[in-house]
Amino acid sequence: MASPATAAVENLPQVLLLLHPAAFTIFGEEHFTSPKFRFLKAYESSLPLDEFLAANARSVRALLVSAATVVGAGILDLLPELRVIVTTSAGLDQLDLAECRRRGIRIASAGDIYSADVADCAVGLLIDVLRKISASNRYVKNGFWATKGDYPLGSKLCLFQLRGKRIGIVGLGRIGLQVAKRLQQGFGCTVSYNSRKKKNPDQVPYPFYQDVRELAANSDALILCCGLTEQTRHAVDKEVLAALGKAGVIVNVARGAVVDEKEMVRCLVEGEIAGAGLDVFEDEPVVPKELMELDNVVLSPHSAVLTRESMMELARLVVGNLEAFFSNEPLLSEYEDD
Amino acid sequence: MASPATAAVENLPQVLLLLHPAAFTIFGEEHFTSPKFRFLKAYESSLPLDEFLAANARSVRALLVSAATVVGAGILDLLPELRVIVTTSAGLDQLDLAECRRRGIRIASAGDIYSADVADCAVGLLIDVLRKISASNRYVKNGFWATKGDYPLGSKLCLFQLRGKRIGIVGLGRIGLQVAKRLQQGFGCTVSYNSRKKKNPDQVPYPFYQDVRELAANSDALILCCGLTEQTRHAVDKEVLAALGKAGVIVNVARGAVVDEKEMVRCLVEGEIAGAGLDVFEDEPVVPKELMELDNVVLSPHSAVLTRESMMELARLVVGNLEAFFSNEPLLSEYEDD
Repeated sequence: MASPATAAVENLPQVLLLLHPAAFTIFGEEHFTSPKFRFLKAYESSLPLDEFLAANARSVRALLVSAATVVGAGILDLLPELRVIVTTSAGLDQLDLAECRRRGIRIASAGDIYSADVADCAVGLLIDVLRKISASNRYVKNGFWATKGDYPLGSKLCLFQLRGKRIGIVGLGRIGLQVAKRLQQGFGCTVSYNSRKKKNPDQVPYPFYQDVRELAANSDALILCCGLTEQTRHAVDKEVLAALGKAGVIVNVARGAVVDEKEMVRCLVEGEIAGAGLDVFEDEPVVPKELMELDNVVLSPHSAVLTRESMMELARLVVGNLEAFFSNEPLLSEYEDD
Repeated sequence: MASPATAAVENLPQVLLLLHPAAFTIFGEEHFTSPKFRFLKAYESSLPLDEFLAANARSVRALLVSAATVVGAGILDLLPELRVIVTTSAGLDQLDLAECRRRGIRIASAGDIYSADVADCAVGLLIDVLRKISASNRYVKNGFWATKGDYPLGSKLCLFQLRGKRIGIVGLGRIGLQVAKRLQQGFGCTVSYNSRKKKNPDQVPYPFYQDVRELAANSDALILCCGLTEQTRHAVDKEVLAALGKAGVIVNVARGAVVDEKEMVRCLVEGEIAGAGLDVFEDEPVVPKELMELDNVVLSPHSAVLTRESMMELARLVVGNLEAFFSNEPLLSEYEDD
């Protein structure tokens, strides 16, 4: 017979987890728990997912997902009582939004909590690529400064100034706007942008380009900050890379598939663009092996959102959204279609 | 017999070089030449320096130096006709300024041309240390993301947010002010500073600390941007590092000797401070070997001033100052004591 404490826990409403959320590994599951709900972990079952859901999940009203958890109509059909999806991601491209809307499933995202960190990472990657910080660090740590002389070797100085650079931002949402502010106000760059719609010029003074290729042709660096949609998939293609040109740099903190990765790799290897700072890839965690040897390419493992401070805020928001849902209170960060 | 062209070159006024300037190696000597003067290169002679100067340099009126060329009374005694020193450095700590003043020798420095690049490098190093960009890059390039999982491993998330951090700037000159602008306006940090004198608060709104230790106690990161003087030598000592504390970060784009390097290395190894981004060292190009293995330490080889764009501007300024001197025109960037 279950103890009263166990029975009390078993009576708590369930929050379904399909995959192990990365945030649990990175920051600790204990930060995401609450006395007001308990987790139902599909990934700990030996059953196939559909059998597990058929056996356990027909009464589940809440689902917690990360960026990696794809939720389409098939899963939703197995969860007829589902009313809320809370995601640890700011982007929602893993969710079938139309199906959620049709079924009346509300969505709470991580909202704006990552924007500053992602913007910082974009600027950090850009400075690193232009000034070769990671490559210099490796050079010094290998002991080459004392034995081989100044980095870079040879007469071709491959460190470039940030001031005055023309920055093209693809996707001027919350992250893009923060990147723009840092680079224009802080570093004296000039900013232009592409996005679905031109922003109100009274609020957003940067020049708008309807066409990414044209933006690239007028930029020294393209910084990708857009969501992944059918419109932005491979938005940076062969023609855009050619327009960016031999002195141009790509920074991607959006999603890997916003770029035609194969074509970008070819351009980097053949010197058709100058460098890249990449936090995201088309087939993560697999990274094209050609990039591993290039000093003008800086790679980070989709960690633009990962800081101790943002994880603390995420935990507060996830627990708060789920507790609010189960208490019939307004969600803290409900996503609304625009 | 010399050809007319050779004779014409030999009649040009001489600009003495004691050491091979780094800028010649990095950017190319051809950018620093002029039809109005010629270089007299002591470093190409097999004679000891004093013999070379006694034999060749008694009529030399102009000297071109870099940061590495120490010029004291001994050298100046051998150059009685010297009237101008042009340096490729912004700092003047290699020159005996009192002796130069006493002898009426004018000085033209690189002025403000490096400030933006150095400030960019300081911010880049700070982001790198907080967000572990170089360490992540190495992790991904070693293929560990696909084989070992997310970086950082384990439950202790060691990536930190920049927003809201308390930045203490030591030396609020041209570089320090540009660092302050980037971090406060661009990234939402709060800035305080220490310098020889408190600035006019109408022009400089940041809180002033007379004492570096007290600044450190109230900062998450100390960014060193001061010149090296007897007052600033080892300004960051054991007590300051202890005041900065276990969560604190040091960024040094000033001079290595502003920090007690041995003590800083001990603090980094023993976890008494959180990390460091270092462009300068006490005994360059020798870097303490204890730093080579630390993921929370980012090293660059005194390259904060090195960009293609700043080298182009330097060449314009060096040639312009020397041509102006030989034409009895005002120097482009004359140093004046304050």
